[in-house]
Amino acid sequence: MTEALFVVNAGSSSIKFKLFGVEGDHLSLMIGGALDGIGSHPKLRARDGDGAVMVDRAFEPAEIANSADAQHAIGDWLAPLLAEQRLIGIGHRVVHGGATYHHPVLVDDAVLGTLESFIPLAPLHQLTNLDPIRVIRQRRPDLPQVACFDTAFHRDHPEIADRFALPRALYDDGVRRYGFHGLSYEYVASRFTEIAPDIAGGRVVIAHLGSGASACALLGGRSMDCTMSFTALDGLPMATRCGSLDAGVVLHLIEQMGMSPAEVGHMLYHDSGLKGLSGISGDIRELLASDAPEAALAIDYFALHVAQAVARHAVTLGGLDALIFTAGIGEHSPDVRARICARLRFLGVGIDEGRNITNEIDLGLGSTTRVFAIPTDEELMIARHTLRLLTMRQ
Amino acid sequence: MTEALFVVNAGSSSIKFKLFGVEGDHLSLMIGGALDGIGSHPKLRARDGDGAVMVDRAFEPAEIANSADAQHAIGDWLAPLLAEQRLIGIGHRVVHGGATYHHPVLVDDAVLGTLESFIPLAPLHQLTNLDPIRVIRQRRPDLPQVACFDTAFHRDHPEIADRFALPRALYDDGVRRYGFHGLSYEYVASRFTEIAPDIAGGRVVIAHLGSGASACALLGGRSMDCTMSFTALDGLPMATRCGSLDAGVVLHLIEQMGMSPAEVGHMLYHDSGLKGLSGISGDIRELLASDAPEAALAIDYFALHVAQAVARHAVTLGGLDALIFTAGIGEHSPDVRARICARLRFLGVGIDEGRNITNEIDLGLGSTTRVFAIPTDEELMIARHTLRLLTMRQ
Repeated sequence: MTEALFVVNAGSSSIKFKLFGVEGDHLSLMIGGALDGIGSHPKLRARDGDGAVMVDRAFEPAEIANSADAQHAIGDWLAPLLAEQRLIGIGHRVVHGGATYHHPVLVDDAVLGTLESFIPLAPLHQLTNLDPIRVIRQRRPDLPQVACFDTAFHRDHPEIADRFALPRALYDDGVRRYGFHGLSYEYVASRFTEIAPDIAGGRVVIAHLGSGASACALLGGRSMDCTMSFTALDGLPMATRCGSLDAGVVLHLIEQMGMSPAEVGHMLYHDSGLKGLSGISGDIRELLASDAPEAALAIDYFALHVAQAVARHAVTLGGLDALIFTAGIGEHSPDVRARICARLRFLGVGIDEGRNITNEIDLGLGSTTRVFAIPTDEELMIARHTLRLLTMRQ
Repeated sequence: MTEALFVVNAGSSSIKFKLFGVEGDHLSLMIGGALDGIGSHPKLRARDGDGAVMVDRAFEPAEIANSADAQHAIGDWLAPLLAEQRLIGIGHRVVHGGATYHHPVLVDDAVLGTLESFIPLAPLHQLTNLDPIRVIRQRRPDLPQVACFDTAFHRDHPEIADRFALPRALYDDGVRRYGFHGLSYEYVASRFTEIAPDIAGGRVVIAHLGSGASACALLGGRSMDCTMSFTALDGLPMATRCGSLDAGVVLHLIEQMGMSPAEVGHMLYHDSGLKGLSGISGDIRELLASDAPEAALAIDYFALHVAQAVARHAVTLGGLDALIFTAGIGEHSPDVRARICARLRFLGVGIDEGRNITNEIDLGLGSTTRVFAIPTDEELMIARHTLRLLTMRQ
């Protein structure tokens, strides 16, 4: 009987999951899938390790109204398939580990309580992440569960990168530049040590460009700064999130324009970014396919701000040896990569046009800075952490 | 009888003023002074063009409770001194010209009404700027007055630098990246064409570092971007203002920590920045004199963020030919300039240690970027604009 690990990556409208076979410290993908459209048009899809479709099933919206329902449906589907495996544990992506967790942690009652106390730090995401943990604790109380945090990779930032220019008391109350996308950065950094061991320990910026987007400065493979800070609103403009915004705008919208804080929050999370700039879509593929000037403005805006963030991180690092693109846009949009790199030519950043168009990993050599596109795999990173913790526990 | 121009630069607790003699298009300083400590310990001080003290007089707090009282006191003191001059007009610094004014403007009833409509855009400053205009209209209705705006120099920004990643409707409602310190930037840029005409038309960043601080990117002598945006809170950390801040922090302080928007605004304007970081002082001279680690952190933080802003602007400009420091810290703090330039060494920025310590204008040559410290003179810029408008009017 082979051993297996299950990974849950729960978002606001979907749960992604992967099942890995475990042999020693080797992890092999057995199943990868998602339950999308939670509460609207729920659909469970999964493929096996060879890419063959295992399930493609729609549900009524009322059947899968939230991430707890979704986790039950995934569990119901998965249970009979696990007859041949011994499930040894489950790893979860959890957005916020607060100032407490610098590393993944085995979940028990006390830990779950602590993680619930971070809900005010990420009201939209933290609850969604914790629901599947609770469901699995009911269904399979025998299984160890591990929480892996988006914030943990950034928790050793020097104080200068961890503070806002605010009174110290707020820092002590948890108002810190936590940083996010840490599991993605950690995975890409580990891949980079295999791809370019000569510079992986140098001055590196990773740009995680998906519907959420941020950029991380790394020195010696460790995070030194991240554009996302206290919340996932800050830094780069995103599909529907505003990125950096004058704090005075938030106050103006509330005090002068009569919006409620909740209305402002909804607009900044859901109606801003590329969607707000273009008035067309938050999906950069739709913008790239459009010939509207508003679409062109939004794409230029995105590329400019990513390039500015890279230059900002280069100051933190004292220079730039490598720039790595990852996540949806970073892995699959040669056009956006080319625009960003063109803006950074004065820094010695350059890419090979041919290799860029075919989405190679190594995009060629600028005069001083090498450029790469490396696919991320948050679920594999979670599986590795989970296996390591379970092994340590034995 | 010689002609003269009077310039008023009204801030929250002081009015600075200068009287210039006018011969053709030549302006010569005749009186420079200030009424400081409005509402607390008011004091009127002035010197003549040779630096001799003309007045040094204290008032009771109740006598000078606001900027209107201050303007009356200055007018009472000045009137008898103007027996030998013919005052031809008065120029004012006005913080906000909204999206309307790309240039200085002669003030009449309609203009004054428009300027009042911008009060919601800068509640703290705009009223203070308009009060002296009203007082002078009462006292000397015969005198033409000119409003010169902190925002006007930035009003021709390309749209990509004028927008936040927010819905277009907010832009149309005036939520724009206006930029500030424009009179200072315009003056320094004009001086720079005399000091280094070979590169003044190139890629230039001016860092205006005073108790308020911002950085401006210039191409061909025109502003392309500014770190201050919708309000004077954004961008660089300042003496007591926060600079760039995650919008999510503002929402968190209101929704989760129960602060009112007014309390948040007060903290972000008055208790943040260097003061908040250090817990000691917002005055960088006091921090430089301190051996507390919190003071060192605040100074490093300031230098890092200025350097990051310069690099960010270099992306906008496609490189950097010159970096110019101005205003209190920029003109007088070799230590801070050296820290900023050290952070930018990888960009080819370098300064001559000896010339830096003696506050020379030309601070020596980096490998690609030249560095300067140029004293600003907002009042002279206002006088020039005022004279030009009065001349056009004849």
